Amino acid sequence: MAGGKKKKEVKKETGLGLSFKKDENFGEWYSEVVVHGEMIEYYDISGCYILRPWSMGIWEIMQVFFDAEIKKMKIKNCYFPLFVSSSVLEKEKDHIEGFAPEVAWVTKSGKSDLEIPIAIRPTSETVMYPYFSKWIRGHRDLPLKLNQWCNVVRWEFSNPTPFIRSREFLWQEGHTAFATKEEADEEVLQVLELYRRIYEEFLAIPVIKGKKSEMEKFAGGLYTTSVEAFIPNTGRGVQGATSHCLGQNFAKMFEINFENEKGEKGMVWQNSWAYSTRTIGVMVMVHGDDKGLVLPPKVASVQVVVVPVPYKDADTQGILDACTATVETLSEAGIRAESDLRDNYSPGWKYSQWEMKGVPLRIEIGPKDLANNQVRCVRRDNGSKSDIKRDNLVEQVKTLLDNIQQSLLDAAKQKRDASVQVVKTWDEFKDALVQKKMILAPWCDEEEVEKDVKERTRGEMGAAKSLCSPLEQPELPEGTICFASGKPAKKWTYWGRSY
Amino acid sequence: MAGGKKKKEVKKETGLGLSFKKDENFGEWYSEVVVHGEMIEYYDISGCYILRPWSMGIWEIMQVFFDAEIKKMKIKNCYFPLFVSSSVLEKEKDHIEGFAPEVAWVTKSGKSDLEIPIAIRPTSETVMYPYFSKWIRGHRDLPLKLNQWCNVVRWEFSNPTPFIRSREFLWQEGHTAFATKEEADEEVLQVLELYRRIYEEFLAIPVIKGKKSEMEKFAGGLYTTSVEAFIPNTGRGVQGATSHCLGQNFAKMFEINFENEKGEKGMVWQNSWAYSTRTIGVMVMVHGDDKGLVLPPKVASVQVVVVPVPYKDADTQGILDACTATVETLSEAGIRAESDLRDNYSPGWKYSQWEMKGVPLRIEIGPKDLANNQVRCVRRDNGSKSDIKRDNLVEQVKTLLDNIQQSLLDAAKQKRDASVQVVKTWDEFKDALVQKKMILAPWCDEEEVEKDVKERTRGEMGAAKSLCSPLEQPELPEGTICFASGKPAKKWTYWGRSY
Repeated sequence: MAGGKKKKEVKKETGLGLSFKKDENFGEWYSEVVVHGEMIEYYDISGCYILRPWSMGIWEIMQVFFDAEIKKMKIKNCYFPLFVSSSVLEKEKDHIEGFAPEVAWVTKSGKSDLEIPIAIRPTSETVMYPYFSKWIRGHRDLPLKLNQWCNVVRWEFSNPTPFIRSREFLWQEGHTAFATKEEADEEVLQVLELYRRIYEEFLAIPVIKGKKSEMEKFAGGLYTTSVEAFIPNTGRGVQGATSHCLGQNFAKMFEINFENEKGEKGMVWQNSWAYSTRTIGVMVMVHGDDKGLVLPPKVASVQVVVVPVPYKDADTQGILDACTATVETLSEAGIRAESDLRDNYSPGWKYSQWEMKGVPLRIEIGPKDLANNQVRCVRRDNGSKSDIKRDNLVEQVKTLLDNIQQSLLDAAKQKRDASVQVVKTWDEFKDALVQKKMILAPWCDEEEVEKDVKERTRGEMGAAKSLCSPLEQPELPEGTICFASGKPAKKWTYWGRSY
Repeated sequence: MAGGKKKKEVKKETGLGLSFKKDENFGEWYSEVVVHGEMIEYYDISGCYILRPWSMGIWEIMQVFFDAEIKKMKIKNCYFPLFVSSSVLEKEKDHIEGFAPEVAWVTKSGKSDLEIPIAIRPTSETVMYPYFSKWIRGHRDLPLKLNQWCNVVRWEFSNPTPFIRSREFLWQEGHTAFATKEEADEEVLQVLELYRRIYEEFLAIPVIKGKKSEMEKFAGGLYTTSVEAFIPNTGRGVQGATSHCLGQNFAKMFEINFENEKGEKGMVWQNSWAYSTRTIGVMVMVHGDDKGLVLPPKVASVQVVVVPVPYKDADTQGILDACTATVETLSEAGIRAESDLRDNYSPGWKYSQWEMKGVPLRIEIGPKDLANNQVRCVRRDNGSKSDIKRDNLVEQVKTLLDNIQQSLLDAAKQKRDASVQVVKTWDEFKDALVQKKMILAPWCDEEEVEKDVKERTRGEMGAAKSLCSPLEQPELPEGTICFASGKPAKKWTYWGRSY
């Protein structure tokens, strides 16, 4: 025991290693891993965080994908102001009720008071829609499809958590207007599918596409769809991204009307949809382990790190040259590779550091490898080692990276699935909640019942609420009753605590 | 005259045409052209503007270029918070004096007052450098080279002008730290060269690379370099982008120290550099004409617009098909082309609209063109027409676009050069200022003298000031005296009124 403790102190001195374990103290583990992994630096204003290049690189990779996809859908980027006047912000009543407590207000410039306080956007519906009203006159102006990449501010007072709940965050927000509800409905799902792909194809995180309950939908909208992830360690759901159909509610408030082909007046149907830097936090929570971050290859700024393992009497220059050549070969093939040739750190220290930073694949080159014209590959996700010939380096590294990407998704899916529990009664529900499950239950879909569930599950862990009703509904045999109210069930819905 | 007036009214009804002429009323012309060209929408908060897709597309094209270039220089993107606490903001005295009057303050969230007011970044030196101090320990942590793409807020009360002077704008800001002054100096010029390329290669605007005077340099920095453009119509210089060497001033305030190879303590040398959406405004001012915007092909979201010109008895479907095929051929070759097949507008109306939006090249296809397997090309910059065979469409269109890009730069350079006047005496200087010249004069380089020049040229047009001392200095014969003070001149410096 004493030896173990001493070892830990050495690690601390070198700035490596985590003091907390993911399974034992998840919250502290998370705070530590995002800092030691160099994703985040804590900032001197509570709830604000610095996104360091290591996390910004992930954001940029997702952005390149998503931006190209929405451009294919003929959605165009624009930029609306950060500021919104109170009169415009407060135009849609339900909407502002949802956001008002979190709005930050600018009241001064220099030493002068502003004539009227100006709000910082918590989201841009009310910023944009007065101009939709101006720009849309006839059916030829439709659809109007805009997106912006920007920062938004929500001055929340509940527990701030890096990426997951911060007072300022980066996101994209799409805002579109159509002549018909059918077109709006179709786009909601098209965008939701892009969000699923970001999570599953890029971040290797399984998500459930679903519809939010009336209580949980976007304030002022018609209906909200989302992709929902789950964090088994805390037993909490995470709303991964949302695609809202706003219906005609904002159109009514902001008078967004058009004349159709027949010269008749109509009102537009609108959507808005967004994903944010929260995605990165979900990725850290799902894949990270006691050694640090685990990055899926598709989003890692560095997919492969090459570390020389010299020995006293070996051909050190030959080893360093082989490392450099390996990086060159991989880089030319489009693989994001870097070498770590620092001479003041031991190979072991470097292994730990790159494991902390979550680089998917480590390549080691020592005297034996040099002699055999091979390199040693070590996977970050499962630690497995393999020697590969330098002759078909690129092909094998690509295969390894693909395997890591797939394994991460498979492992996450297995854990997530193991957390899902089907319940039919209130007692089963309560038990499953204690066991931190993601609960699938037949529900009557009544708002009063959801309020009641919240009320009955209140406690220091936070109340349970509906996460989503999956778009792919399991069969609901006739006569099935709601787990909470005993009334006839209308649908299957996921429940649980959430972030 | 009556006929002319009537014609104008018809134009107005259709929403096309400008009411003001560039040479007659530049300010109104500019406001009108950015709105009618669909670059900007005025916003209900003064000094804030909406960047519509037509301008955002230009910003994105420049961003792709610049971002790739700085990544080659191993500069990494990050994101620091929008907010800064007053204690940190006010740490560097000269710096905060420069920005304090323009800082917007958040004092409330929801209905509660914040404990202490929080500033919105006018720039991020003071936001970032406390963390530079934390991250930099030894020489191996250097250089530290970061950049962010973000919005900043400067609540100015002088005349707001879209793109050129707005209360919120988009920019990139690079912040780097080096072990030696030599490295910092070198990077300052490397980045300045990228800014020159943005102006000259992308926006087709000639700029002068130069160094700012002590009065005009960045508040708190060591020296400032800039690229300076000139607007002949108003006789005003525009600071196009700036690359500052901050020296060790911020390092001292924020204690950014490191240990070198020999174990000695050192202080870092820092740079910061930025270009903003102002670039787009300069482009509009330089190239626009009485028909509207004129976009350089390299930054135009749509480089070629294809308009069908059907006649009653002609093969309309054949013409429409030829338009679609033309767009496809061009798009496949990487040319940004679109067709305008709307059937409720005449070809003439479409010509005017695309001229207003500044599309570099228009292709018309009518019955004769169809019969001859050709298309008619009309250049936006000079109106010249040419017929080209569809067989080598791509090659010829590429040549045309290249020519337009070059012609725009050449024409702008000619106008700018014609505006430059060399003066040696105060009388010549005053005359040249009245004639709206960009004045090159020998200067003693004393701050008091610049203050005096400002004082003596005060008036409703605004005072004259130094724009920059060009890096490429003309010969300065011994015994040359300062135009303003009569003291020995130390360098050639550009002077004028400026934005």
